[in-house]
Order: sequence, then structure tokens, then C-alpha cells
Amino acid sequence: MKLVRFGEAGAERPGLIDADGAIRDLSDVAPDIAGATLTRAGLDRIRSVDASSLPIVPADARLGPCVGGVRNFIGVGLNFADHAAETGLRIPREPILFNKAPNCIVGPNDDVMLPRGHQRVDWEVELAFVIGDRALYVSEEDALSHVAGLCVCNDVSERYFQTERSGQWTKGKGCPTFGPLGPWLVTLDEIGDLDNLEMFLDINGRRAQTGNTSTMIFKIAYLVSYISQFMALDPGDVVTTGTPPGVGMGMTPPTYLKPGDVMRLGIEGLGEQQQKVVAFREEVGAQPSHAYPSGVDFAR
Amino acid sequence: MKLVRFGEAGAERPGLIDADGAIRDLSDVAPDIAGATLTRAGLDRIRSVDASSLPIVPADARLGPCVGGVRNFIGVGLNFADHAAETGLRIPREPILFNKAPNCIVGPNDDVMLPRGHQRVDWEVELAFVIGDRALYVSEEDALSHVAGLCVCNDVSERYFQTERSGQWTKGKGCPTFGPLGPWLVTLDEIGDLDNLEMFLDINGRRAQTGNTSTMIFKIAYLVSYISQFMALDPGDVVTTGTPPGVGMGMTPPTYLKPGDVMRLGIEGLGEQQQKVVAFREEVGAQPSHAYPSGVDFAR
Repeated sequence: MKLVRFGEAGAERPGLIDADGAIRDLSDVAPDIAGATLTRAGLDRIRSVDASSLPIVPADARLGPCVGGVRNFIGVGLNFADHAAETGLRIPREPILFNKAPNCIVGPNDDVMLPRGHQRVDWEVELAFVIGDRALYVSEEDALSHVAGLCVCNDVSERYFQTERSGQWTKGKGCPTFGPLGPWLVTLDEIGDLDNLEMFLDINGRRAQTGNTSTMIFKIAYLVSYISQFMALDPGDVVTTGTPPGVGMGMTPPTYLKPGDVMRLGIEGLGEQQQKVVAFREEVGAQPSHAYPSGVDFAR
Repeated sequence: MKLVRFGEAGAERPGLIDADGAIRDLSDVAPDIAGATLTRAGLDRIRSVDASSLPIVPADARLGPCVGGVRNFIGVGLNFADHAAETGLRIPREPILFNKAPNCIVGPNDDVMLPRGHQRVDWEVELAFVIGDRALYVSEEDALSHVAGLCVCNDVSERYFQTERSGQWTKGKGCPTFGPLGPWLVTLDEIGDLDNLEMFLDINGRRAQTGNTSTMIFKIAYLVSYISQFMALDPGDVVTTGTPPGVGMGMTPPTYLKPGDVMRLGIEGLGEQQQKVVAFREEVGAQPSHAYPSGVDFAR
């Protein structure tokens, strides 16, 4: 299945993409694409419904982030050997984990805002997985049964905040709008070979990143099992698994985002995102989540 | 006000401590001590109620974490000059931020479990603040108006996971049960001088940590303002602000937690916690949050 959340930011409703590519409204079947809906039992309930019986949603509906109510939003650092090389950092012995603030999550086509004081805002096309059933001390063999599905994530990063503001990457990873997720949450049964998915990211129509999940150092099943040795992963938790080569900091000269830039990115079978880069808008700070008018989703 | 959450793990209800020290049930006034309830408007609504008109809760009710639905749970590292000295690390130029998994939060008197593979599990009495109204790019002067209140946090930490498992502290900070919060969320108007609160932590009745917020390097108002330059802080987000000297890793020889140990900790005006240390219990991995029977709150 391809699951989506559509409608105004902070008031998204659950939907699925039918065989003809139309969005069908799941509001009468599930409260949201979030939490318990993502467990095996919750997904089976959606599978049991005849999609053709559900209301069709207008094709121009805004898409929100494909998962709602995310609490733990984890990133994996330097997980492509060729990307690690372009950053000049060593390939890690074990997965590097960092956190993105869950309220940085936005829809796949919402604007990405440059934060105040930004110096080097960079792009990262990534494959994210979303937890279905709780994972704690799960084996690598059993790991994928705890994953509800996959989606595209743009792990937008402020390199100066991330690496030069004293310890721990989290400072450069969770600025508002730094986590576009979607367009779809694709359940694992719809995806062919997890280890052979093409990835790309274009800046203003020029190819910047080209990759394939075949060059991931730590694969999804390994990551689920690994992270679950340190903390419990619960339904709706999101882990974004690292980026292939072609980020701005690896270019000669290094190239970073500026207002007006357009990012387009996608992963084979998981759809595409497109974001416009905009300057910081003052009203974001003052507005409560649900009232923010621009398509940015700060809903809690 | 002193706000609490009482009842079974995962099904806590909101309450407040009345003038006689009894818990009064706020279920008819607020859905939970979480999210919008923590804004100025939400707290004012609770203030407007005559506590003596509310049902009294039995005194032996379990206390859950004093905040529910936490999404961003941030820690501040090395924020006491004398603690930084005992760890052998430099005093940071800027606050060090790390993340604790939000599902590690438990009630103030719940058991703390040693995770599988643990080597060096340590204690940290800390002052935590809870966000009321959204904070993004707030000034230090305005910062405290975005804080709903304060509580005690035991920032339980696995030092081996934290520092020797390749990058970023988050691996040793979010194991299940590593975040006791409470007993009370105390609103700022009830607290005297924020910069002069005594702190203590006892292990098996012997004093281990003694501190005072007067020796915090970065104070609460500064931290709110500082963090809000990197990410939005939303209602119910929790920031625990660092620990004074006396942690296990600073002892000679270093001393870590073992099953049967009892931690008692408190901060002036914010109450006390007491946790028993237990070995890992297998069923935690298998059980969905709300069904976990031991008082551990994994509810999402």
C-alpha cells in the first residue's frame, strides 16, 4: 500500500493511493497514519478495505508528511561509503545515530526555510523507515517485521550548526522545516529489492546526488536491530538512514542552499518530493502549530 | 501549582496537589498534563478552578511522569562546572545538547531497568524545564514566559553506550526507564530563586550528589533562548539541564548501578523521586506500551 496524509497542515487526514493513482480518503477506516495504525494489525485493517469504495480526494490536495505524531526521529550518519569519503570523515565502525526534532517534519512539497543565522544549509536525499510494531532487542532476522514501511526523507542540515556549535549534531538537524517526509509511506510488500533502489536529488534541475541503496553500509534490518539494542522503537518512530554522495559540502567549491532554490528528490518506488527554499519567515515563531498558514506542519 | 499525573502506566490522569498535599483529580478540567494544557491559557484555566471542589485521589495512587506525550526530550551536557571537572572534560563554550528517547520517560518512583549489555549505568539528578508556549528565536529576557514549569529528572545514563559506541551520546541516554520525571510539574510562580535550589541524590541511603542551581553554567532562561535558535520548542517538550558533581563515573573507584540499588533524589521545592534498580525484564520488548504491567510507561 501507499499511504498518505492529505489536507491542511496540522489537520491532515489519512488516505491511500489507489490502483489508478488517485487518493482515497481513509478517514472512516483509521484516525491517522500514525501510532497504532502502523502496527501489523492496523495495516491489515486498512488492507481489508475495498479502496474503490472510499471517497476520492481532489488530485490537487496538499500532501502532508506521510506519518503523523512522530516522537522519535532518528538519523543515521555517514551510512554510504562514498558519502563518508566526500565529507572527509572515516567510515564508522558502528552506525552513528543523531536526532532530528520531531517538529521539523513537513510535507514532501512544503517550503524549506533557511533558519536565522544560517551559513551552510545542505540537502540529503534519504530512505527513511517507519516503525510499525515496537522493536526492542530484535534480531536482524526479525527486524523487518517491525517496519511499517518506507518513505523519502530530505534530511536538511545546517552544517555550521551541526559541526561547529559545540558537540552533538542535533543542533543542525532539527530547524523548522528540515524534515520533509513523503509523498507516500510505502509498505514493505510493495517494494522489490530493498538493497537496490535508485536515489536522486536535483538542485534547480541539475543532478546533485545519485545513489543506490546497494552502497548503504548498514542496511535497514541491521539498523532496526542495532538501534533496538539502545532504545525501544515504537509505532510511528522514524529513522532516516543516511545519504549517498553529492551533498553541497562535498562540492568544489562547497555549495549551499539559498532562497529560490528548488530541490527535487526521489527514491525508486517511493515517489518524489519537491521543495522551494525560502528565507526565514518571522511568523513561524509566533504562530501555534495548527495556525501556521504556509503549509508548514508543526502540529503536535 | 503542583501538577501531577496519577494512575496506571499509560492511562494516567491529570491532577494537582492541593494546599493540604492531597491529589485532586483534574480529569474534568483538562485532558492531560500535556500539550496545550501547558500553555499559559491552559494553565490559567486550571488556576481558575477551585481545587477544593475537585475529587480527592487516594494517597497511594501511583504517580506517572508529570508530563505526558513528550516528543522532544533534550538533555544539556556538562552544565555544572564542578561536574565537568569530575568527568575530565572541558567546560563547553556553548551548551551541549543531546536527545533522550521520549519513550524512556517513566514515573518518579518506577523501577529503573539495567539494559541488556550494560556496563556502566550511572545516575544524574537534574532540574528539567517543560515548555508551555512555543519558543522559536526567543530572547533570554522573554524566555521564561515560554516555560510551563520545572520538575526533577533522573538523567540515567549508560556511559559505555554513551561514549564508546561510535559518535553522539543519544545511544546511552534513552534506554527504557532512563527518564524518571516528577513527582510534580511545579509552575514557575511557585518557585523562589531559580538560581538557588538545592539538589541531592542518594544511593542506598548514602549521599552521592550534592549541588545547587547556583553553579549551573548556562541558566534556564539562557538555555530556552539558546535552543530556540536551532529548533522550535513546543508545548510539552522537556529539557533536562545537566547534573552537579557526584555521579558514579566520577567516584574513586568508579561506581555504577546494580540490581537492588535504590536511588533517592530531589530538588528544593520540586519534590523527591525514589527508584529501585532492577535487571532487564524480557517482557518489556514484547509488550505493547499500554499493556506493560510493571508501572513502566511506554505509552505514546
